[in-house]
Amino acid sequence: MASQFAPPQDTAQLEDLVSRMVSQALEKERASKTKKIALIAANGTLDWAYPPLILAATAASLGWEAGIFFTFYGLNIIHKDKHSALQVAPIANPAMPMPMPVPNLMGSIPGMTPFASFMMKRKFAGAGVASIDDLLDIAVESGVKLFPCAMTMKVFGYKAEDFIEGSQDICGAAAFLSYASDADVTLAF
Amino acid sequence: MASQFAPPQDTAQLEDLVSRMVSQALEKERASKTKKIALIAANGTLDWAYPPLILAATAASLGWEAGIFFTFYGLNIIHKDKHSALQVAPIANPAMPMPMPVPNLMGSIPGMTPFASFMMKRKFAGAGVASIDDLLDIAVESGVKLFPCAMTMKVFGYKAEDFIEGSQDICGAAAFLSYASDADVTLAF
Amino acid sequence: MASQFAPPQDTAQLEDLVSRMVSQALEKERASKTKKIALIAANGTLDWAYPPLILAATAASLGWEAGIFFTFYGLNIIHKDKHSALQVAPIANPAMPMPMPVPNLMGSIPGMTPFASFMMKRKFAGAGVASIDDLLDIAVESGVKLFPCAMTMKVFGYKAEDFIEGSQDICGAAAFLSYASDADVTLAF
Repeated sequence: MASQFAPPQDTAQLEDLVSRMVSQALEKERASKTKKIALIAANGTLDWAYPPLILAATAASLGWEAGIFFTFYGLNIIHKDKHSALQVAPIANPAMPMPMPVPNLMGSIPGMTPFASFMMKRKFAGAGVASIDDLLDIAVESGVKLFPCAMTMKVFGYKAEDFIEGSQDICGAAAFLSYASDADVTLAF
Repeated sequence: MASQFAPPQDTAQLEDLVSRMVSQALEKERASKTKKIALIAANGTLDWAYPPLILAATAASLGWEAGIFFTFYGLNIIHKDKHSALQVAPIANPAMPMPMPVPNLMGSIPGMTPFASFMMKRKFAGAGVASIDDLLDIAVESGVKLFPCAMTMKVFGYKAEDFIEGSQDICGAAAFLSYASDADVTLAF
Repeated sequence: MASQFAPPQDTAQLEDLVSRMVSQALEKERASKTKKIALIAANGTLDWAYPPLILAATAASLGWEAGIFFTFYGLNIIHKDKHSALQVAPIANPAMPMPMPVPNLMGSIPGMTPFASFMMKRKFAGAGVASIDDLLDIAVESGVKLFPCAMTMKVFGYKAEDFIEGSQDICGAAAFLSYASDADVTLAF
């Protein structure tokens, strides 16, 4: 590109040249910038654990920087004793596709929650979707940052050692905002 | 602007010139860039179908590019046989304003879910809010992109032809991230 | 920085110089820009009132511009007669850590919702977390903008004077999108 140099003859020419160079430099910077996603996982049921984990793992596989802030019930997703036992309630969600419709009354019978959770796991496995445990492994291995929320840890009495290997240092709302402030995509679940 | 040419006399002057041009270029770019919103609809109840459809339709009416990724229960919203029959459960949501308070026990009686859904539709119609069916028509007509999530389609056994006219090709998490990566607003419902 | 001026000898040198200056100008702009968060609060239960209020108050304390759009059940959070009485349902959320597991059947017994709400408030207070009332005060005092959604106000029959002091003028979806369009972080709860 080191073509023969035709020095700008007046301000307009210089401005024009610089303007084109500025556009090129901006485009180059954008193309080279690593994309980033910052997610919040605030639900701790089986169904709501999938979206943040799948999005983060997919983003990481595309070369994005990815982090999830686990807060409120979402802390369950990275809790050592709970992440394999997440459940879904067959009640109060008329949108849940079930083998047969479950009226709220029946859904409130003890035993229906484990049954619905078992059915959902089987449906997901049948469609070739990784389990929550596998998704957590994939996330950690691909560098997704898993941040436990300090405040809700205190509320629920959880300690740093309660969380799976690969979790980050506990993190407050301010630290999450700082992480998210230059993200390209931010979503809460 | 082709004023008499005063070529930059030193690095500082050139820096000053470039800095001003960068600001102008950025401002021009921002002003001319079409705004874009990327939404996720993961809930399939009557109440949660409104926010993504209303935001997308409003954004499109303002000249924004708008797309919704329908995943999990949210697939119901664009399902031919289900979008007109979305329901809301009168149980487990103490925030729902009802003509009279419905205790969870009463909410679990069969028949309460269709009744609450009927009441909500009437309330929304009474306030002049478009129905879900109308909002879907408006969205499609105004160019909102409706993406069904490939993975959860497989889980729930839905096929491309199950979705309303105007839906896009089925789309994975990676394609959604690519769509959302340059959006100005990203929100999940 | 006005070092001895070595005028660019050819286009490549000028491009190089401009490219470095563009990077500097962008970095300067980014560092000086006030960060902004735009939140949606669409849930009106006790547990879901915390995340948007805590994030907005934290953002404001960091010098960010912060605004929350209260829509649907979320309007309860800023409703004068309701914000102190937000409740959480002990049903249909198997992720809720309770002193002892509450089966859906037991959760549907009248009186369990106030009891679960009382327990949650005590847990949060015990961990030193501000109450919803205090968070609202902090938000208003630190300049967080609280926007009631015009459309859902009409649906639920609320009037401007129903909302706490410090709420903004009622606001439609278009006004929220305009507010959010240049935000760095956008999240819906």
